[in-house]
Amino acid sequence: MPDVARGLEGVVVAPTSISKVDGEKGALIYQGIDIHDLAAHSTFEEVVYLLWNGKLPQRAELDALTAELASETEVPAPVLDVVARIAAGRDAMASLRTAVSMLSAFDPDAEDMSLPAGHRKAIRLTAGMATLVAAIGRAMAGKAPIAPDPRRAIAANFLYMFTGAEPDPVTVRLFDQALVLHADHGFNASTFAARVTTSTLADMHSAIVSAIGTLKGSLHGGANMRVMQMLLQVDAAGNPADAWIREKLAAKERIMGFGHRVYKVEDPRAVHLRKACKALGQLHGDLKWYDMSMAIEKAVHEDKGLAPNVDFYSASAYYLMGIPLELYTAIFAMSRVAGWTAHVLEQVQDNRLIRPRSEYVGQRGVKYVLLEDR
Amino acid sequence: MPDVARGLEGVVVAPTSISKVDGEKGALIYQGIDIHDLAAHSTFEEVVYLLWNGKLPQRAELDALTAELASETEVPAPVLDVVARIAAGRDAMASLRTAVSMLSAFDPDAEDMSLPAGHRKAIRLTAGMATLVAAIGRAMAGKAPIAPDPRRAIAANFLYMFTGAEPDPVTVRLFDQALVLHADHGFNASTFAARVTTSTLADMHSAIVSAIGTLKGSLHGGANMRVMQMLLQVDAAGNPADAWIREKLAAKERIMGFGHRVYKVEDPRAVHLRKACKALGQLHGDLKWYDMSMAIEKAVHEDKGLAPNVDFYSASAYYLMGIPLELYTAIFAMSRVAGWTAHVLEQVQDNRLIRPRSEYVGQRGVKYVLLEDR
Repeated sequence: MPDVARGLEGVVVAPTSISKVDGEKGALIYQGIDIHDLAAHSTFEEVVYLLWNGKLPQRAELDALTAELASETEVPAPVLDVVARIAAGRDAMASLRTAVSMLSAFDPDAEDMSLPAGHRKAIRLTAGMATLVAAIGRAMAGKAPIAPDPRRAIAANFLYMFTGAEPDPVTVRLFDQALVLHADHGFNASTFAARVTTSTLADMHSAIVSAIGTLKGSLHGGANMRVMQMLLQVDAAGNPADAWIREKLAAKERIMGFGHRVYKVEDPRAVHLRKACKALGQLHGDLKWYDMSMAIEKAVHEDKGLAPNVDFYSASAYYLMGIPLELYTAIFAMSRVAGWTAHVLEQVQDNRLIRPRSEYVGQRGVKYVLLEDR
Repeated sequence: MPDVARGLEGVVVAPTSISKVDGEKGALIYQGIDIHDLAAHSTFEEVVYLLWNGKLPQRAELDALTAELASETEVPAPVLDVVARIAAGRDAMASLRTAVSMLSAFDPDAEDMSLPAGHRKAIRLTAGMATLVAAIGRAMAGKAPIAPDPRRAIAANFLYMFTGAEPDPVTVRLFDQALVLHADHGFNASTFAARVTTSTLADMHSAIVSAIGTLKGSLHGGANMRVMQMLLQVDAAGNPADAWIREKLAAKERIMGFGHRVYKVEDPRAVHLRKACKALGQLHGDLKWYDMSMAIEKAVHEDKGLAPNVDFYSASAYYLMGIPLELYTAIFAMSRVAGWTAHVLEQVQDNRLIRPRSEYVGQRGVKYVLLEDR
């Protein structure tokens, strides 16, 4: 019997130039640039350019991409009609999967596998996802969509489309930073799914739809929502977070938002999201969620030696930004689409069908017995 | 640098009991039963039962499943409305991907990950896909959908819904056999995509949508359509097929429908599809496509030692059944959904996140330069 590489853990499946996750050092780089520098100085639009083109843009290049993204923020009316029809009471990611799939019917480049068409589709998908996530969030609350404002960058536009109000600059900056931090992360399961789909030379919409469906799973995109559910539980219980969490740890319950298959030390993204959580707490004059999170972090570290991952502090940061829990994974998708599309473009340019083997462990030599003789 | 298992060729990713592809012997078994026996004696409904339950059904069990499938053949009207809105002039698989994704909005079990809910969804998806493929095929030709007739089995119902006419028994039998032959095939790329999506504990609709998008690619589901395009070209050229193909072989052009990553000898499914092509030719009193295919098979075998795969004879068989080329891949999906759902159920029951590594070959240590300094 051959070795079974269950979960493909540690199996290196392809070369990539897009991002590198160094689990030992707790480092993440996009196209050679450290995530800490990008979190401090960059914007989501700049990171989108970087991921797709392998270099930071000049001012004119950034302006051109920003203008192209702005010109593609509107979503076809029939897709918004479907969102209005299906989103209420349903999973946001299921609605996003359907809406993004349907976008292909209105994309003139849908079946064009050329690199220029790929870039145009990547722009449409990245711009369109923000509009769709906002529309889905509103439809889930029984509200009509708000048309995008093409003068705004993606982070500000999303907050405007979702709330209908002018977002404050601190929230815009920290939301934009969250988009930067989530934009790519090696061969995570959703990115890998996008590459598997692309490897049959399927179109970009198919690949992104696979990625959305894969991110939807609770072991991938759903973690920060469950972290927030935990924080809300702690708050409702009225106990100090420290006592609450130690009780859970003693009962060997799994604590969401800690540890990572790849990172053996602290997830570098957590550093910035921890700060964002604090800054947003200060903005709202209430450090409750920050203090609670810090207490849990300390207790889990002492008990299990685990560090928080990207999901632990994004949970309360998004909460403080006014984003409802059921939209957290869709927000993740709205950022990660930058990385997914970059990986699709990379896969197409040096493609090989991704088709593993399975080890058959079932029955053998079973005789077919006619129905009347069974 | 670690070994890179490009395309995961030969990498065994998980155990499975559903089907075994023996590439050396040219054998395919479903749950221990040889595909030749199933092709000769079984029906698609029986194979669906076999793939999901690991054993052939008793009469009462088969009747129960057939009744359940029949009760789920109707597709929600809003989904058919979307099909009518988007299918004309677009890729059938793109429309199928959107429609199947949208089905989840009307499935009461959509987010229920339990095994009983999984079985119910598998029934709805398998029954619904046939209705959707027929509706998409008609919408592509500008025609309104025909409601399913729950008294018919899936193969007959599809032919009825697609054509609006009573299908002849030979065509029904051979189409049913084609569904049997395509129902599962180890860890092909689309099945693998479904399992990657499932491995994050995403829902069944997400997994099937990933599989549809992955099958859509020209390296996977599109091959028999391209075989038929070749046969139509040979026919239009008016040359003997033998001379035409030898010219292509001499020019080192790739001939569609031959060879397989896994099979080193003849694909066992080709045997039955070759016979089907002949029987359908006899039914229509014209063996043109059969004779042409045989001549090409002979020439390719002599020149390259390659045997035909499943796609080579399904091309002309479907053509003789009156199925348009642009629907071939969707027909494949309508059968393979039986296997996809079986694999999803198997993956959920013994899950492990499928998350490989990549080998970073990009830039390192790139300094972040502020926009104004670039």
